[in-house]
Amino acid sequence: MKKIAVLGSTGSIGTKTLEIVDRMADKFAVVGLAAGSNTRLLHEQVRRFRPQIVSLKTQAEAARLRSDLGSLPIRVVHGPEGAEEVAGFAENGIVVAAITGIEGLRPTIAAVETGARVALANKETMVVAGAILQSRAASSGAEIIPVDSEHSGIFQCLAKEQEGDVERAFLTASGGPFFRTPLAEIKSKSVEEALAHPRWKMGRKVTIDSATLMNKGLELIEARWLFGLKPSQLGILIHPQSIVHSLVEMRDGSTLAQLSVTDMRVPIQYALTYPERQASGLSALELSRIRSLEFFEVEEERYPLISFARQALETEKSLPVALNAANEVAVEAFLRRRIGFADISAVVGEVLEQHRVSEADTLEAVFAVDRETRAQTEILLEKRY
Amino acid sequence: MKKIAVLGSTGSIGTKTLEIVDRMADKFAVVGLAAGSNTRLLHEQVRRFRPQIVSLKTQAEAARLRSDLGSLPIRVVHGPEGAEEVAGFAENGIVVAAITGIEGLRPTIAAVETGARVALANKETMVVAGAILQSRAASSGAEIIPVDSEHSGIFQCLAKEQEGDVERAFLTASGGPFFRTPLAEIKSKSVEEALAHPRWKMGRKVTIDSATLMNKGLELIEARWLFGLKPSQLGILIHPQSIVHSLVEMRDGSTLAQLSVTDMRVPIQYALTYPERQASGLSALELSRIRSLEFFEVEEERYPLISFARQALETEKSLPVALNAANEVAVEAFLRRRIGFADISAVVGEVLEQHRVSEADTLEAVFAVDRETRAQTEILLEKRY
Repeated sequence: MKKIAVLGSTGSIGTKTLEIVDRMADKFAVVGLAAGSNTRLLHEQVRRFRPQIVSLKTQAEAARLRSDLGSLPIRVVHGPEGAEEVAGFAENGIVVAAITGIEGLRPTIAAVETGARVALANKETMVVAGAILQSRAASSGAEIIPVDSEHSGIFQCLAKEQEGDVERAFLTASGGPFFRTPLAEIKSKSVEEALAHPRWKMGRKVTIDSATLMNKGLELIEARWLFGLKPSQLGILIHPQSIVHSLVEMRDGSTLAQLSVTDMRVPIQYALTYPERQASGLSALELSRIRSLEFFEVEEERYPLISFARQALETEKSLPVALNAANEVAVEAFLRRRIGFADISAVVGEVLEQHRVSEADTLEAVFAVDRETRAQTEILLEKRY
Repeated sequence: MKKIAVLGSTGSIGTKTLEIVDRMADKFAVVGLAAGSNTRLLHEQVRRFRPQIVSLKTQAEAARLRSDLGSLPIRVVHGPEGAEEVAGFAENGIVVAAITGIEGLRPTIAAVETGARVALANKETMVVAGAILQSRAASSGAEIIPVDSEHSGIFQCLAKEQEGDVERAFLTASGGPFFRTPLAEIKSKSVEEALAHPRWKMGRKVTIDSATLMNKGLELIEARWLFGLKPSQLGILIHPQSIVHSLVEMRDGSTLAQLSVTDMRVPIQYALTYPERQASGLSALELSRIRSLEFFEVEEERYPLISFARQALETEKSLPVALNAANEVAVEAFLRRRIGFADISAVVGEVLEQHRVSEADTLEAVFAVDRETRAQTEILLEKRY
């Protein structure tokens, strides 16, 4: 039995993880759960999986769960420190790091520091602190297995390859809901239209990031740290069917690709069972029914955030942190209907233009840049919109 | 420096192999060459690569080369035994087994018995004597690396997967020149039309086998022995672009695929340099230019030989031997314009119907079934056409 702690257990990745664990109850035992605001679902998860520790967002929520649980021997904690404590309970096991955004940074670092396997679903951690995370993993011996479908694909293709044999890696992007929308019409797209993702069902933030392609921009930076590749070795292909998740081109001209039906349970389960594979119960890929797999280059005019992401990928230091912070604030403003769809990239671009690149080589520096950039973005939003 | 012997050095695979070896002259030394009737090209190859041994088809051809070479210290032999002797010179090195047809059987067995790496391009060996070949390889320690592009793809995808994790493997087929031809018109297709393969430039026999899809049928049987898969685990997908060479579906629903430009130098070089990869100088795959990769099921009505191949795959024993022999004779008759295109499958079908399945578990038995089936096919041809 492998111990599993799930950070972000009520989110999209967290619930799918628990579904998989439930199906493989002879292999995995849930020892810890940490979640944000969906306390009703968390209560259910606690009753079903009986972890040793649970973390909630606030002290009040923790107190309510504690009294609900009566005499059950479950430790209830709260806040960011609570999530970090949960990570520590998966000793020699697996921590699924699925708290979204910069909030997931400290718990993910805590998970890596335990030396456990970290199934990494929080891409922001790699974006803002990739070098820090990798150096802590090297010290603790933690094994980081990506959960993002694209990175899981690359990981699967690379498993057998020798370092230095990789020429280029490509992440695919569906292109989001506006891939075929005339450029002039994108500006006026509503929140509902931007949330109507053609392929993947995901959280709201990442769905908007898919419409702007920022999600793929963050994943480029994530891939750089996960696989130690140079910016020039990383590419994006628009692939509207979302069947091929990534491709790795080797230096002999051979390319390996990973494909599956569009279901996050594939990469999540792989991160849990690696290097083994287990039956997933998912329907097999029937390529002759899908018939055609299409690939297109990225139009930078359609997805202006991609060029900012490329710039952050090449500059490194504090620029990815600023990019991520400005984007999080701008997307939130769009979701609250304070700004229009095209304003997301306009705001991010303006913030990055003002940004003064610094080293950001400690967690404290990362958080400082994050806070500062958020504040700047807020000021810009208030002044302009 | 790795020693290399090339059996079938003047054919399509042989010449490409020597081209690769030429480019990597610091890594490989050609120690032996064996070829059939293209003596002019073989003379050139001998002068360029200076092997220790050369085998020609006939004694007369061997004598001519011997006198041509003057005092050069090169052993010149001939006939099937000559080719077998060439295989023995690659001790601890690599034998590229690229003699087409049943003729390649004994030299390939000889290569496997040396314990060398065998880069296997002769699919018939696996088709007619897969069990024998694998058992000899197990005794000698020979490593069999497939050169067929589809099998190379599977081999690359499987390299680090665990046995039992594979659910299905798919070989792709371009569909040949008649993939979109109305069924009623296929019957009257000429030799020239059948030889106009849309993607691959190959020898005449294998090009016709691509038009009938028999090539893929033989490859199914080859894959069964190369990878130890059951008939129900092996499938074919028509993929007119010939970019994806094969796909391996794992039991967790994940599929790995191998892609490259349509050039046999990719799998040949991989078989030579495995587990390393080396730059090949081939153009990289640009999926956004190719735009669309299509996949179709096999229409058995269009490719009747496929059902015979499936039957041979399932029955095993002498049936694959008979299938291969009847097909070789029928294709030869088509190429000599004795029969029409649709007669190939009609003839093979009739011969197989008459075939009495026997064990064929020794090389002698395999050759006996082969001879007998060829004779039967000739009799049928004379009687009917």
